[in-house]
Amino acid sequence: MRYLILLIIFSLVLNNCFSQTIDSKERSFYLGNFLLESGVTLPNAYIKYATYGSLNKDSSNAILLPSSYGSDYNGYNFLIGKNNSLDTSKYFLILPELFGNGRSSSPSNTPPPFHGPNFPVTTIRDNVLAEYQLISEQFKIKKLKSVIGFSMGAQQAFQWAISYPKVVESLVAFCGTAKTYPHGYVRLESAISTLETDSNWNNGNYTSPPIKGLKAWSLHWASWFLSQDWFRLEKYKELGFETLSNFIQNRIDKEKAIDANDRISQARTWEFHDISNNNVFKGNIELALAAIECNTLYMPSESDLYFPLSEALYENKFIPKIQFTPIKSVWGHLAGAGLSQKDNEFLNATIKAFLDN
Amino acid sequence: MRYLILLIIFSLVLNNCFSQTIDSKERSFYLGNFLLESGVTLPNAYIKYATYGSLNKDSSNAILLPSSYGSDYNGYNFLIGKNNSLDTSKYFLILPELFGNGRSSSPSNTPPPFHGPNFPVTTIRDNVLAEYQLISEQFKIKKLKSVIGFSMGAQQAFQWAISYPKVVESLVAFCGTAKTYPHGYVRLESAISTLETDSNWNNGNYTSPPIKGLKAWSLHWASWFLSQDWFRLEKYKELGFETLSNFIQNRIDKEKAIDANDRISQARTWEFHDISNNNVFKGNIELALAAIECNTLYMPSESDLYFPLSEALYENKFIPKIQFTPIKSVWGHLAGAGLSQKDNEFLNATIKAFLDN
Repeated sequence: MRYLILLIIFSLVLNNCFSQTIDSKERSFYLGNFLLESGVTLPNAYIKYATYGSLNKDSSNAILLPSSYGSDYNGYNFLIGKNNSLDTSKYFLILPELFGNGRSSSPSNTPPPFHGPNFPVTTIRDNVLAEYQLISEQFKIKKLKSVIGFSMGAQQAFQWAISYPKVVESLVAFCGTAKTYPHGYVRLESAISTLETDSNWNNGNYTSPPIKGLKAWSLHWASWFLSQDWFRLEKYKELGFETLSNFIQNRIDKEKAIDANDRISQARTWEFHDISNNNVFKGNIELALAAIECNTLYMPSESDLYFPLSEALYENKFIPKIQFTPIKSVWGHLAGAGLSQKDNEFLNATIKAFLDN
Repeated sequence: MRYLILLIIFSLVLNNCFSQTIDSKERSFYLGNFLLESGVTLPNAYIKYATYGSLNKDSSNAILLPSSYGSDYNGYNFLIGKNNSLDTSKYFLILPELFGNGRSSSPSNTPPPFHGPNFPVTTIRDNVLAEYQLISEQFKIKKLKSVIGFSMGAQQAFQWAISYPKVVESLVAFCGTAKTYPHGYVRLESAISTLETDSNWNNGNYTSPPIKGLKAWSLHWASWFLSQDWFRLEKYKELGFETLSNFIQNRIDKEKAIDANDRISQARTWEFHDISNNNVFKGNIELALAAIECNTLYMPSESDLYFPLSEALYENKFIPKIQFTPIKSVWGHLAGAGLSQKDNEFLNATIKAFLDN
């Protein structure tokens, strides 16, 4: 009996601490035969998504948070909840997951003939189209109060503003740009090449994981996703790793579990992103940025090595209604990943003020 | 006859244009049984070196320029000559080459039992000791007007100031730090892992080159040694490449020719560098930097991803007699490699003024 009471108390405490997690609803949205930008039709396509909160009567409180590279709907937990920027008693949050993440349609979960390395290239625009179908068909939403995104989520937020300017009332992009510039392409090809080097790779038709390649892959990402200063200042200790070796070994162990084709699929999505790649802008990124009509909150991380401050400063010059607020952080790209308490607080405060305005 | 005259004129013109190259003298300096910091004795060790100009009577005009990663004595050509900072009619220049570069004692040119992957680890201090023997035994030099170095050459310049404070009158370090901080270690391990992933690798006992690994290796370096902006601004065109693909293919073709064990050997030298790693400073880098007695010109590249500005700013705080002059460049680490005319001019002007002072 005493244990039962303790259990109830413990459950109530837990429920309070993680209320936003507990009321999430994870579902699939089926797209049927989904025509991709490449011209390929992906049969039985679907995306996973989760929601928090409730849509209000006039459907004016919906916010979309598209997922980032290798992530799922949990990537934005640090922004969600009463004490954060996205109060679920106020907003209806929709968190769709990118193709290729291993949960939405992906190389690893698609049957032949589109399995593994045969999975077609999906673009950021393909993802945004799927998300548009989700919000308009499933929820009959005609306006989004905001599209908020980190990294490849930011790429999607920018694309939303171009693809559906009448739907998007505002966008918040952190640690991500409206285009993948050439360095991003070279770096991602460098990442992909680590897997292709493994003799298990077999052009993506591996029968056992490319373990050596995955080790090289993990070291690639470990050296890129944080800043040089993060390492010098031993910030891995804030993540609970006593030594650099512990941190590196953890990365190697974690990345062993990924599906290589899934990660390559998403890397290609990332590589090819360019909001100006259409018949209107014909590759002129400055024109495309200038065409973003909605209020924009743009928050690069000052130490991001993927999407460096200089690229954000360049894009900032062309976006009309912009609040440009860099994150002063040594957490590199991961300043936007919810790992640093200080960065989380800064993001929450800035996003809250922007949405309230 | 007409052709002979033309040939003579052409030779004279060439001779004039490349005078500093033509009067260089490339030699080997033999170190015999050379005791390394690791405790291993390397038999029949030697370093390659070149000289320009003449040592004056009181031996007061010698400048040492130790080579950088994967380079040879030609790495400093852009600083040498009448119109540059190092006038060979004024200075006696000595350009020693690092162990492991394939010309000085290296995995690829050392007989068993120290061949290939069995070649012992050589440190920056080992190289500096060899260079000290070269200048004191071969040239009877007791003072160096300066030690000037780029990248791993800068690492050696800092080490010279600690190892031989009575010899070094000044040091010039560009695009390189006094210690390899943890990010440098992770990045270099990331580079090494690309080669180790190749099935030809065979723990370094490859019988044919690890071609796939070398492709991944080349992409690794291509994404790190320049800046993100360099790519966005299409600076590869200044190197004569019309497209990004041309540039990348050139890098892949070039790196195919390297010896993997040689490059890994030098990467380990780089990784382990720390001027404070001795019995006096016991790993306290701030104490070691504070102990640098000579005048120091420190020139980080503002866009260097290997040795970022933040690390140089950190070291700058502790070095007593310092002129800290960052290179404003988008050429990343290669701002110091002689490829950019603008950066070359800035380096030449700054170094000339520093030496004349």
